Amino acid sequence: MRRPNPEAPIGVFDSGVGGLTVARAVADLLPHEAMRYVADSAHQPYGPQSVAQVRRHALAVLDSLVDEGVKMLVIACNSASVACLADARERYPVPVVEVVLPAVRSALAATRSGRIGVIGTRITIASRAYEDSFAAVAPHTSVVSAPCPRFVDFIEQGVVSGPELEALALEYLAPLTAADVDVLVLGCTHYPLLADLIGAVMGPDVRLVSPSEETAKDIARILAAEGTARPAAQGPASVLVTQTGASEQLLQWAGGLLGSRLLPHSRWTRRAAV
Amino acid sequence: MRRPNPEAPIGVFDSGVGGLTVARAVADLLPHEAMRYVADSAHQPYGPQSVAQVRRHALAVLDSLVDEGVKMLVIACNSASVACLADARERYPVPVVEVVLPAVRSALAATRSGRIGVIGTRITIASRAYEDSFAAVAPHTSVVSAPCPRFVDFIEQGVVSGPELEALALEYLAPLTAADVDVLVLGCTHYPLLADLIGAVMGPDVRLVSPSEETAKDIARILAAEGTARPAAQGPASVLVTQTGASEQLLQWAGGLLGSRLLPHSRWTRRAAV
Repeated sequence: MRRPNPEAPIGVFDSGVGGLTVARAVADLLPHEAMRYVADSAHQPYGPQSVAQVRRHALAVLDSLVDEGVKMLVIACNSASVACLADARERYPVPVVEVVLPAVRSALAATRSGRIGVIGTRITIASRAYEDSFAAVAPHTSVVSAPCPRFVDFIEQGVVSGPELEALALEYLAPLTAADVDVLVLGCTHYPLLADLIGAVMGPDVRLVSPSEETAKDIARILAAEGTARPAAQGPASVLVTQTGASEQLLQWAGGLLGSRLLPHSRWTRRAAV
Repeated sequence: MRRPNPEAPIGVFDSGVGGLTVARAVADLLPHEAMRYVADSAHQPYGPQSVAQVRRHALAVLDSLVDEGVKMLVIACNSASVACLADARERYPVPVVEVVLPAVRSALAATRSGRIGVIGTRITIASRAYEDSFAAVAPHTSVVSAPCPRFVDFIEQGVVSGPELEALALEYLAPLTAADVDVLVLGCTHYPLLADLIGAVMGPDVRLVSPSEETAKDIARILAAEGTARPAAQGPASVLVTQTGASEQLLQWAGGLLGSRLLPHSRWTRRAAV
């Protein structure tokens, strides 16, 4: 395998705007690393689709990022991590980072009672990826999980508050509050964008955990181990945000989360739908 | 979902004879549970094939087990677990048990130094499933892994010793002995059948760990939780071993590992290749 060029960007991918929460953590920890972010807005939301469909969509986007010469792939989407991680690791000559296990690690560091809640899309919850990981390494934790299928739809419309969403949150989160969890894993990268609302429903004693910071640390570790980090002396690098569809909200969220790091021509860059 | 019938058998599946090591542990822990074992001998070995190919073969066999009315599926094959666990959990109305995380749990209980070795097929090692699981839950362990692609071929021929295999073991295991691991995960269910040879190469201070006992415990736990265990009072149940191909060795190994539990007509039962 040819060593990737340290000057090359990191490729970050999600179905929509959720992965921007991971990109933001990477931008904070590794400001000198350039990123290319792709939202597969032509095919989102992933959650209601079959594992096979999500795998096909996700690999098409990852293929395009590898063709553009990224030095690393970040699957900043729980549903896609569940669906295609093994395929991606087989298929590409660059490291592939996912988000499920960083979230598990964060949750284990944060819990005191060992009662952990997990919310995610239908695909992620049905895969039992979180339950299995907790059971494997911390068999005495008890995990309660709940799918929150419609959260992504609201976020992709730019809606993060209001009575309809609040009623939905109360309904979705009821099994978690009933189980008296002390940590809630936001097992979908979109959900940190609802942290205010989710935190209000769960109450101040429940810690919300997302994979973004731990994923950024994994990325830093791999770049260091492979000798492919971009030298910090070269100063801050930019983030190019693109999409496969035509979401109006994407640039709004990207501007809010990435600020001046966002490349101006993100505003018009479009990819062909795959 | 209709509650599965406690009288129904547990379906256990592998590419070949390796999963019999798991079936044996289940037979020991849960003697009153009937099992149907399918070896996909028409398509083994899985290790050298692509993730997509293994997924297709494995789901075809799992489909046939579900059609026969098993109450649970055990993917007693690391390569297939890596390739199709999320698909299987989505596809079937019965619980699906895999083998990677039980092995991780066993290794963490066994290691003292935190230096853990993992051997497996090409697919399993390339997926980084073990590295990720250890990194997620025990970040201070150090994991060294090595693919051992040809071990399965020897085992499927019934060969577990001899100079050629010894030379291969010395070559494959060299990175593990050099890394001074204190635990070696047998990350392919075939490998316990080479435990004598592997143990001799690694030396008496290295503990060999396989998923079989922990997987059997997972199965017991799920049957209890779902209320689908077969009552122990009904006495020992039998194991029907079948295959998609025509391996001569399968019944040899099955007889050795399952003894009188093996149903006599296993000798002639054949499935159509899928």
